[in-house]
Amino acid sequence: MTSFPLLDRIESPQELRKLDRKELQPLADELRGFLIDSVSKTGGHLSSNLGTVELTIALHYVFNTPEDRIVWDVGHQTYGHKVLTGRREGMATLRHYEGISGFPRRCESPYDTFGTAHSSTSISAALGMAIAAQRAGQARKAIAVIGDGAMSAGMAFEALNNAGVAESDVLVILNDNEMSISPPVGALNKHLSRLLSGRIFNGARDIGKRFLEQLPPPVFEFARRTEEHVKGMMMPGTLFEEFGFRYFGPIDGHDLDALVPMLQNLRDLKGPLFLHVITRKGQGYKLAENDPILYHGVAKFDHTEGIATGAPKTGSKQTFTQVFSDWLCDMANEDPRLMAITPAMREGSGLVRFEQEHPDRYFDVGIAEQHALTFAAGLACEGAKPVVAIYSTFLQRAYDQLIHDIALQNLPVVLAIDRGGLVGADGATHHGAYDLSFLTCIPNMVVMAPADEDECRKMLTTAFRHDGPTAVRYPRGSGTGVIPDAALTPLPIGKAEIRRNGTRVALLAFGTLLSSALKVGDALDATVVNMRFIKPLDLETLRAVAESHELIVTLEENAVIGGAGSEVARGLEELDIARPMLRLGLPDRFIDHGDQGQLMKEIALTADQIVARIRTKMDAIGLIV
Amino acid sequence: MTSFPLLDRIESPQELRKLDRKELQPLADELRGFLIDSVSKTGGHLSSNLGTVELTIALHYVFNTPEDRIVWDVGHQTYGHKVLTGRREGMATLRHYEGISGFPRRCESPYDTFGTAHSSTSISAALGMAIAAQRAGQARKAIAVIGDGAMSAGMAFEALNNAGVAESDVLVILNDNEMSISPPVGALNKHLSRLLSGRIFNGARDIGKRFLEQLPPPVFEFARRTEEHVKGMMMPGTLFEEFGFRYFGPIDGHDLDALVPMLQNLRDLKGPLFLHVITRKGQGYKLAENDPILYHGVAKFDHTEGIATGAPKTGSKQTFTQVFSDWLCDMANEDPRLMAITPAMREGSGLVRFEQEHPDRYFDVGIAEQHALTFAAGLACEGAKPVVAIYSTFLQRAYDQLIHDIALQNLPVVLAIDRGGLVGADGATHHGAYDLSFLTCIPNMVVMAPADEDECRKMLTTAFRHDGPTAVRYPRGSGTGVIPDAALTPLPIGKAEIRRNGTRVALLAFGTLLSSALKVGDALDATVVNMRFIKPLDLETLRAVAESHELIVTLEENAVIGGAGSEVARGLEELDIARPMLRLGLPDRFIDHGDQGQLMKEIALTADQIVARIRTKMDAIGLIV
Repeated sequence: MTSFPLLDRIESPQELRKLDRKELQPLADELRGFLIDSVSKTGGHLSSNLGTVELTIALHYVFNTPEDRIVWDVGHQTYGHKVLTGRREGMATLRHYEGISGFPRRCESPYDTFGTAHSSTSISAALGMAIAAQRAGQARKAIAVIGDGAMSAGMAFEALNNAGVAESDVLVILNDNEMSISPPVGALNKHLSRLLSGRIFNGARDIGKRFLEQLPPPVFEFARRTEEHVKGMMMPGTLFEEFGFRYFGPIDGHDLDALVPMLQNLRDLKGPLFLHVITRKGQGYKLAENDPILYHGVAKFDHTEGIATGAPKTGSKQTFTQVFSDWLCDMANEDPRLMAITPAMREGSGLVRFEQEHPDRYFDVGIAEQHALTFAAGLACEGAKPVVAIYSTFLQRAYDQLIHDIALQNLPVVLAIDRGGLVGADGATHHGAYDLSFLTCIPNMVVMAPADEDECRKMLTTAFRHDGPTAVRYPRGSGTGVIPDAALTPLPIGKAEIRRNGTRVALLAFGTLLSSALKVGDALDATVVNMRFIKPLDLETLRAVAESHELIVTLEENAVIGGAGSEVARGLEELDIARPMLRLGLPDRFIDHGDQGQLMKEIALTADQIVARIRTKMDAIGLIV
Repeated sequence: MTSFPLLDRIESPQELRKLDRKELQPLADELRGFLIDSVSKTGGHLSSNLGTVELTIALHYVFNTPEDRIVWDVGHQTYGHKVLTGRREGMATLRHYEGISGFPRRCESPYDTFGTAHSSTSISAALGMAIAAQRAGQARKAIAVIGDGAMSAGMAFEALNNAGVAESDVLVILNDNEMSISPPVGALNKHLSRLLSGRIFNGARDIGKRFLEQLPPPVFEFARRTEEHVKGMMMPGTLFEEFGFRYFGPIDGHDLDALVPMLQNLRDLKGPLFLHVITRKGQGYKLAENDPILYHGVAKFDHTEGIATGAPKTGSKQTFTQVFSDWLCDMANEDPRLMAITPAMREGSGLVRFEQEHPDRYFDVGIAEQHALTFAAGLACEGAKPVVAIYSTFLQRAYDQLIHDIALQNLPVVLAIDRGGLVGADGATHHGAYDLSFLTCIPNMVVMAPADEDECRKMLTTAFRHDGPTAVRYPRGSGTGVIPDAALTPLPIGKAEIRRNGTRVALLAFGTLLSSALKVGDALDATVVNMRFIKPLDLETLRAVAESHELIVTLEENAVIGGAGSEVARGLEELDIARPMLRLGLPDRFIDHGDQGQLMKEIALTADQIVARIRTKMDAIGLIV
């Protein structure tokens, strides 16, 4: 599709609302065509956005946005929303450096009422907005659009538990596509399935249409006056009614003739409302419909050919995720006590092979990071050896459980922390920027960051063999390309290795920045140490290096506040050595999205920039004579 | 009650299980008498323990503990459990320094299968235990005992959502006393109330008894073969069945003739089971029954007279909680945008008066810290000015929400963080030991710690007037006793104050340790600075002090890793000043319970000990000539 006559007329929802209702489906077709074309050129989330085209159009058509507030849970389904709210041109820069974000952001548009990206926040936020509006005497609607996967998080439950009893005009729209990123798990999903197979929906996807064709707008007008009746016609007795919501649905989320009148009806009702909408991820693009997981997050691809699958190109480097994936299966073969846990990130965390090979030791707990860690603690109490595969940024969701249930009881749980450091296109919400800071202050923790793929495998083995809580933190993407040794060999805990002997300046590198450190070492004839352990720190090596150098430089892909550099400073103090330090890492601000290389340049962490920063520091403290 | 003939015979549950069932109620009476006597002498949790006497006896009577695992949610209801599992003598040292803990601890007894204290972890842990046992081919039961308050936390939902579909032998016992610490909130509670008023229970507390009297053990034998029938007899169609559990109850949790046969029946069933038990907090002690909140956590008292209420003694110092309480009401009177949020800690956080004076701006969200913060973010988006009153240790539950929903969007939410630092008798699970570490690494945050009551009020005003996320962190108990100035006066952000001018050594104090610092200053003729702000740090003052002193000592009641001292070290680096440092704070280990003064001595933070540590440091780095 190359021409978009209807879309061309829409600069904002004001124009959208002037369309005839009959024009909405052709507009949806155009928008879908535009998105396939656009995302195939930029990369980004595809399946989720194709699934919400009609819902997006219907919401902006019926509600008075941005006066009415739409909060998009997770927010990776907002590309259509961005196109309809004046950012069509921006889509060419989507998720690129200095381009528009792949998620809603308050600073990007007044239509982005709440920044999202981590799941399950939307109902809480919308409830806050609704209550604030009510207290200020403003009559606006607050709408949360949330997927069935996001519903499995405890946070969504907490919000439902509060929203259902508040006198608040909050509308929760459950976008039920029977899938988070991985297939759904848990009792809630079974409940949703039962609703779908119930007497109304009858398994037919077009039931909403058939049903509502018999209900022209005047009937809704009548129904509004007899709300209980409408509800009764739809589907009584659901879980959501137990929470105090009036439940409507399920209806077909790709049928504008069902969506629009339903939303018009709900617009005029008061109190907590719950609309259950059925959509299909990848809708309207056959390749994505058939494999929504493959098309969940995509790189650039030819949208007529589809994404090339099959064996990766020979010569391409392994990612750290793949290193973890292989290690996990190998270690599981060696030790039957190993249990692997993922909070709904089977693909992203590299657990696909493990699930196939060890289904009885594989636990996808849904988007439920808190439960994941305490469940691991329970397993560990009974002699199992749990490995929790989790993204750095999502570990923030389980911080108390790590402290209170794992570390305090000194239980042997391995955290395999993926996406430590800058993640690139997902941006500020997804960077793993704080883990070293929030982990090192916890007693009993052993915290490691591998410099390359081989070290990653060795550290995972080290962690697994240690009788206490451990974290191995590795970045998104690949490292130097070294092939890991197949043996399952641990490293000595708390031992660094000196990689280059130089003079005056000592660079202490944590993690994959070691490769930059080695370049810097060559440029400055500096000593370079691969520190390996953030906790416990190798004080012996630190003493040797500090006593023989004039400046200690630390290098880490973590917030410079409270991270590895802070621990080095504390180590020097413990050794009673006062030595000038320069700690390099992520600055004290949120870092936007973009190519990882561009971002490293922006924050002055390329090898050349590091050299310059060290020279400046040496100058400032009088070390250059 | 002074004689305990039955209790005297019970050193462990083995002896308990030898008793005739008719002896259980007299034993319960003795245990209750013992607990009232014991807790009135030591202080501790009372209401919750009186409410679970019969349930505790029945569980140990029916199940083969410790082979069967009981996980007590929150764990403040385990005093009876401790008495029955060999720790009756230890009860005299309860919550005292080097005595037994007020919560279950794995290191204290094999009967304490999982350490708890923060709520809502029990189902996750029990599920982990059940799965591990199943995978290891061991037939044991894992039992979670959880209160209705704890059920409001998302974590419990995440666990239910997983447990109900797993092929796991987990028994969840809902101890429904219609109360967490504050009265319950939310839709879930309404659901429970509906169950209680349903056709079986009929509002009569003794229904379990009446019902089960008609069901002698042989009937249960029959019922076991027709489980669906039993369920149908009890109460069909509950929320918990939607989660995949078989639901039993509600039954009277003070009636051993109901509890014991029910548990015997459940013992032999497989799969996820849910038993709904009704108890009364404070049961059997009229004063506590009538005011369970007053008797929730008690200091020593005369149990025949009851706790003295009424006006506090004249001359007694205000707590920081009271300072916050007064400030909140005063500021609310001045600014109608103020909204106050508590996650189920109305009394502990000082919100009783606010709720009375401003009910429309008061939000108790239940035990739901994650929702609390994102709800606050939603309010702030619409121009409200939310203040979240939260304990330091519970803020760990909402770390991601603070980063992702508040700080990243730079929203003006005030965190009034109570119980920062060592809390005393509640011990390792409740110390506010990490907040400065996990807060300072977050961009946009302003973090303050008041040295006294007046400064606390000023800092709260400072926070409220600031257009961004702020945290004021104050300790449990009282400070120097200074009466806060009634005016609502802010402090300049990021400005410290020099309190004493000395030589050689500069003490930078954060928070209430200032009073110790001033004593140390006198002893050593050291300069003393009240830093006030952990973030942003006062670099100007730091430069002046660093340039004119030989040793910088930082003092904080937070983990020495990543806390205020770390920020001072980083500040010195930023100023290009290399100066010896000694950072004093909480050591890198979990600190047990005990009197705050005793704990400070244990970790060498009394004024005398600080003087000695500074002298040692000066000696080590050659400053003493």
